[in-house]
Amino acid sequence: MITEDIFPVEPWQVRETRLVLDLLGNTESLFALSNGHIGLRGNLDEGEPHSLPGTYLNSFYEVRPLPYAEAGFGYPEAGQTIVDVTNGKLIRLLVDDEPFDVRYGELLHHERILDFRAGTLRRTAHWRSPAGKQVRIRSTRLVSLAQRSVAAIEYVVEAVDRFVRVTVQSQLVANEDQPESSRDPRVSAVLNRPLVAVQHEHSDRGAILLHRTRSSGLMMAAAMEHEVEVPGRVEVTTGSSEDWATTTVICGLRPGQRLRLVKYLAYGWSSLRSRTALRDQAAAAISSARYTGWDGLLASQRSYLADFWDSADVEVEGDPECQQAVRFGLFHVLQASARAERRAIPAKGLTGTGYDGHAFWDTEGFVLPLLTYTLPHAAADALRWRASILDQARERAALLDLTGAAFPWRTIHGEECSAYWPAGTAAWHVNADIAMAFERYRIVTGDESLERECGLEVLVETARLWASLGHHDRHGVWHLDGVTGPDEYTAVVRDNVFTNLMAAHNLRIAADACERHPDVAGRLGVTEQEKAHWRKAAADVHIPYDEELGVHPQCEGFTTLREWDFDTNQTYPLLLHEPYVRLYPTQVIKQADLVLAMHWQSHYFTPEQKARNVDYYERRTTRDSSLSACTQAVMCADVGHLELAHDYTYEAAMIDLRDLHRNTRDGLHMASLAGAWTALVAGFGGLRDDTGVLALDPHLPRGITRLRFRLRWRDFRLTIDVNHADVTYTLRDGPHHSLTILHAGEELMLTTDAPKTMPVRPRRPLLPEPEQPPGRAPLRHRKE
Amino acid sequence: MITEDIFPVEPWQVRETRLVLDLLGNTESLFALSNGHIGLRGNLDEGEPHSLPGTYLNSFYEVRPLPYAEAGFGYPEAGQTIVDVTNGKLIRLLVDDEPFDVRYGELLHHERILDFRAGTLRRTAHWRSPAGKQVRIRSTRLVSLAQRSVAAIEYVVEAVDRFVRVTVQSQLVANEDQPESSRDPRVSAVLNRPLVAVQHEHSDRGAILLHRTRSSGLMMAAAMEHEVEVPGRVEVTTGSSEDWATTTVICGLRPGQRLRLVKYLAYGWSSLRSRTALRDQAAAAISSARYTGWDGLLASQRSYLADFWDSADVEVEGDPECQQAVRFGLFHVLQASARAERRAIPAKGLTGTGYDGHAFWDTEGFVLPLLTYTLPHAAADALRWRASILDQARERAALLDLTGAAFPWRTIHGEECSAYWPAGTAAWHVNADIAMAFERYRIVTGDESLERECGLEVLVETARLWASLGHHDRHGVWHLDGVTGPDEYTAVVRDNVFTNLMAAHNLRIAADACERHPDVAGRLGVTEQEKAHWRKAAADVHIPYDEELGVHPQCEGFTTLREWDFDTNQTYPLLLHEPYVRLYPTQVIKQADLVLAMHWQSHYFTPEQKARNVDYYERRTTRDSSLSACTQAVMCADVGHLELAHDYTYEAAMIDLRDLHRNTRDGLHMASLAGAWTALVAGFGGLRDDTGVLALDPHLPRGITRLRFRLRWRDFRLTIDVNHADVTYTLRDGPHHSLTILHAGEELMLTTDAPKTMPVRPRRPLLPEPEQPPGRAPLRHRKE
Repeated sequence: MITEDIFPVEPWQVRETRLVLDLLGNTESLFALSNGHIGLRGNLDEGEPHSLPGTYLNSFYEVRPLPYAEAGFGYPEAGQTIVDVTNGKLIRLLVDDEPFDVRYGELLHHERILDFRAGTLRRTAHWRSPAGKQVRIRSTRLVSLAQRSVAAIEYVVEAVDRFVRVTVQSQLVANEDQPESSRDPRVSAVLNRPLVAVQHEHSDRGAILLHRTRSSGLMMAAAMEHEVEVPGRVEVTTGSSEDWATTTVICGLRPGQRLRLVKYLAYGWSSLRSRTALRDQAAAAISSARYTGWDGLLASQRSYLADFWDSADVEVEGDPECQQAVRFGLFHVLQASARAERRAIPAKGLTGTGYDGHAFWDTEGFVLPLLTYTLPHAAADALRWRASILDQARERAALLDLTGAAFPWRTIHGEECSAYWPAGTAAWHVNADIAMAFERYRIVTGDESLERECGLEVLVETARLWASLGHHDRHGVWHLDGVTGPDEYTAVVRDNVFTNLMAAHNLRIAADACERHPDVAGRLGVTEQEKAHWRKAAADVHIPYDEELGVHPQCEGFTTLREWDFDTNQTYPLLLHEPYVRLYPTQVIKQADLVLAMHWQSHYFTPEQKARNVDYYERRTTRDSSLSACTQAVMCADVGHLELAHDYTYEAAMIDLRDLHRNTRDGLHMASLAGAWTALVAGFGGLRDDTGVLALDPHLPRGITRLRFRLRWRDFRLTIDVNHADVTYTLRDGPHHSLTILHAGEELMLTTDAPKTMPVRPRRPLLPEPEQPPGRAPLRHRKE
Repeated sequence: MITEDIFPVEPWQVRETRLVLDLLGNTESLFALSNGHIGLRGNLDEGEPHSLPGTYLNSFYEVRPLPYAEAGFGYPEAGQTIVDVTNGKLIRLLVDDEPFDVRYGELLHHERILDFRAGTLRRTAHWRSPAGKQVRIRSTRLVSLAQRSVAAIEYVVEAVDRFVRVTVQSQLVANEDQPESSRDPRVSAVLNRPLVAVQHEHSDRGAILLHRTRSSGLMMAAAMEHEVEVPGRVEVTTGSSEDWATTTVICGLRPGQRLRLVKYLAYGWSSLRSRTALRDQAAAAISSARYTGWDGLLASQRSYLADFWDSADVEVEGDPECQQAVRFGLFHVLQASARAERRAIPAKGLTGTGYDGHAFWDTEGFVLPLLTYTLPHAAADALRWRASILDQARERAALLDLTGAAFPWRTIHGEECSAYWPAGTAAWHVNADIAMAFERYRIVTGDESLERECGLEVLVETARLWASLGHHDRHGVWHLDGVTGPDEYTAVVRDNVFTNLMAAHNLRIAADACERHPDVAGRLGVTEQEKAHWRKAAADVHIPYDEELGVHPQCEGFTTLREWDFDTNQTYPLLLHEPYVRLYPTQVIKQADLVLAMHWQSHYFTPEQKARNVDYYERRTTRDSSLSACTQAVMCADVGHLELAHDYTYEAAMIDLRDLHRNTRDGLHMASLAGAWTALVAGFGGLRDDTGVLALDPHLPRGITRLRFRLRWRDFRLTIDVNHADVTYTLRDGPHHSLTILHAGEELMLTTDAPKTMPVRPRRPLLPEPEQPPGRAPLRHRKE
């Protein structure tokens, strides 16, 4: 468990004050560096000990078989798995003849700092070798946000009290040994040594290795180059072979003397380009990195981040833990997306191999709202990636005998990789989530060019999917049958409210977008009849409502299902202890579903319905998914349970810093980290945009004295500054002089002349604070 | 395709008039011999060519891994697969130096006859070797119904026109090469060479081989012994090794001279007994077979079958194809069950490896009705097998957090082996099907001892399962949610009518049985309260009904689901061309479900409901399962569509003789073969027993002029003899002088004094004959 005594709560960094080997898996994820293209897990420079060695290139994957004991038509036969590529982080150190290894000798001091403003991972170590020689080691690692193909490490060794002979081996290593990843020997076979050597070369102080995957046909290049500073004589040599290259630096250091090594790394991959083109690309990136130099890379990194924080920072006064956590989350979401550039943003970013490195609806549903308001170009790139896999989505729809496009539940390259259809293919809502993300981008940024470029096609093809999935019954009611909503503890149902509302929204915005771009719509073959059918389906959609209880059933019949027996079954997560056959037909919920509908389709529900629905579903939600706490935070805040909302915000924010789901070692939970921002901004800030207007309605919980956050809205930059009494809206700059927003439901005109301060609207809950299932009350953040 | 020119329609046998190599897979299944303990596929004596070599011992299986790309709690990890054991059928022949192989030389004549009264497979061949030497070969094979461990072959070779030197190699061969069985290399690894040699020994004219399985820990013995008759000098030698034993007979034959070999085979297996005990068991069985001798084995076989036909035969005048087919079906059902003796009756009997050799609800639902009325001791043994796996069923229920027992959807040894839970575990109805089979046995035989011995415990534990699966909603209505009924194209639904009616029946008969045996019930811990709860649940069960359409929806909401688009999707079976995600939420049906409920719970439905329901479901049933045609036959007859019923009877009966599902090569469809009997007896005979009374209501279709069938009812033996005008009931003998039955709904007292003849009640359909889905009208049997 990561605790404050080792990881002090500090506003702009995560600092580990001493090395705890049991936490290596966690810290490798927490300290991962990435720019969305290259990802380096926070492995120790010397490689060992490790939990999972990891170097990833976005969308560089291998194909693996998906086995089924009982197969079915349309089941994907090939999965895609991110692979650990050539490791360039490795810098081994010999002190005299003894390898620097924290498990031997004595570690007198060890500290690591992930710095959110510098964008670096700094490490300092003071080590006494088994033979008694002391050295200080300082390494600083970065993955450049400014230069997409580049990473770099500054590595400094200092002799402390006696002369030491120092040997540094700086390496590229392909096909590192991996921990057992699967009980299926065929899968292990694929992922064990996934890279085939293509070419290797080296110069005096650098090397390039080229490899390719066996099945997916991708080729990658990894290059390194070194600068060495040391007083006195030094010997630098480099060698390479198929799976490794090593630059060896040997020198002697007297007490106080230092060896400084700067290692530049460059990565590239391609499914198309030739061996020589790829080799030249890596060589060019290395040259460019050396041209910029270490200090230049540091400076551009800091500058990139300063810009980011200027338009994205959230200040949380009174709650230093949330303050640290939300910045940690923002930093990692930035790292996952900044330079992904038309590649997927995986659920774990590039921090680990969890979920095989796949992207899910997490991206559009949870990560893109944050990016759309803070880093819109990254949101646009992520949406372009989605549009780029339209062909695979169309093929999938055709295979399933549907029209339009069926986007994959999980994928790297675009093909469906979900091997369990009730919680995969049947979760059709991913298509509406994608459509909504395009629409949000248009509304929030005011940029209609993306819609024209590719968004309209996505809207049209997803609308077509819904039109072919749904049907009008003999009473003229439009149903979606056999669908799975966000909650994976109830699947393959009739009329999931979330899915139906989202599908109707998808159908309407597609029709509207076609009106905006009749020429593009025409090229896509959209007729008046088709649009009319979309609008009619949306108008006739069935939204079940339980009049007797006054709540919306999550799906048809949900509120008359058996209740879960929490008295005897409360070992969480339930899915590891209970079979689907028992979970599905009960009123037990893995994650916000109807409650998420109330956030994303807020305007559909009355305040009374929201209050009753929150009350009903809170009692039945286990939060076994990491995609739940943030939404529960937003809706608890909405209905006035501000303290509960604060607890959920804390959970969403601390998911990885406190390893709440006990799987942070597999990678960080990007959706929950982005969700912490959403919990603060949409929960306590009251941000909504589902009617096309920027609506805010702030109200803080007791434990937060002041919340200050920044948004971009149609090229305006706003700052919202909330305390318990009032809220100050500052229109920093923008394309016009004024902007009208909704404050607490009332129109409010802001101008760039001066901030405007409004009283906070009191939020009184209609119902008392609800209970959660036994053992599932949120971690009490309130120090009561 | 098996056609009449090669397989003439004959009443008491299946005869193949010439060898068609493309049909080898089919004929190996059709000509399989078994007694329920040993199964020999109809492979050629000389072993090759073959489609699938097969020798099976009931419940002798190996364990294999069940792989999941995405695993879930409660998914079985180990499957069970029947294995091809040591082949004792092999008799190779050399004519001079050339091996007898039908693919070489010239096959002047070849005929095989499966004789339903002799219980043998006879083969005659006249072959000219490539060198021009002619021989006649006659082999007769039997698997003894009288001596459970014994099979035997008489093999005769005759020189035709010139002197030939004849070498016969009679063998035992273990670990025969198998065709590729799975794309999963781990599964193939398990099933390729599954037997480990334990011991081998031989004498002059015989040998014994002992082997064991690698994982399941079962040991088996196969023994052979030979009698040789030949004029003149003969040399007989025997050798053995780990995986083979061969008795070689060499002699010279002048034209007209014959070599006659009788090969006795004995098999045994055990999970408990020692190597020496098993060896001695096989040796004793061989001795006993030799003591009986070939003629004795033939005579006892014929006598056993004479008894069977005397109480089971069905005579179908006017329809020779159905006549042959129903006897073929009765013969194979007998073979699958006669000496199974507390082992499972697999879906394919012991005729092939289809469905891994598993037993399903097919046994209790389709095979046991026939056995209960014709061979009750075999039905009792099959039920004892079910009771014997109660412990595994209890463990499964406990794992799934349920009370009582959850019997496996598919198994050999008792553990759940279904790897797809929506059409496996969720098909809870198997438990009620089992309960009903116990109840039917009690009602039909009048024997209450089986209930006392083991049936009550099954009834109680299955009732407990239902009590824990179902729940009362807030309106006091009892529901079963998340269940899959017989129809596998709609799964994990609310209130499947079939399941709900069967569960209620299970609950009621369990409570009633506890009243009959209060002492046993007390030992099982059944309280008054528990019984009251069972009765209340049964009374409150929800049976959805669509008032507007006047039909019972197969499950809640079924009649408002989307209709299947048969215009563009009619490649059958649909499951090979359409995904579950599309099949489940539509009104397309794989197999009788609501229609089956109307057969098994006939008393619940009014004649009008039956007529409307048949009409509704006929139009939506693809009959993609082999478990459908027989039920459609019964209910079409019930509502007066007698010609349609005749067509379905034909389909059920001809499933394997005409290879209608194109998988007869994998083994015969026992349920459908038994279903042919049901179609005739329950369809045209009108047999029902679901109210505890023997009810008959015969009415024949145009194409059957006379139907005569035999039943056992509470130790009475009845013959029912129907023509288009009247029906004659003969009470042949019984424990009392008289028996009251229902004829056409009216009480009728039969006595052993004299037959009673009654007029047939006219059956007029309320609705016109329905259409089937495009391409799914039954094979038109009517020669119109």
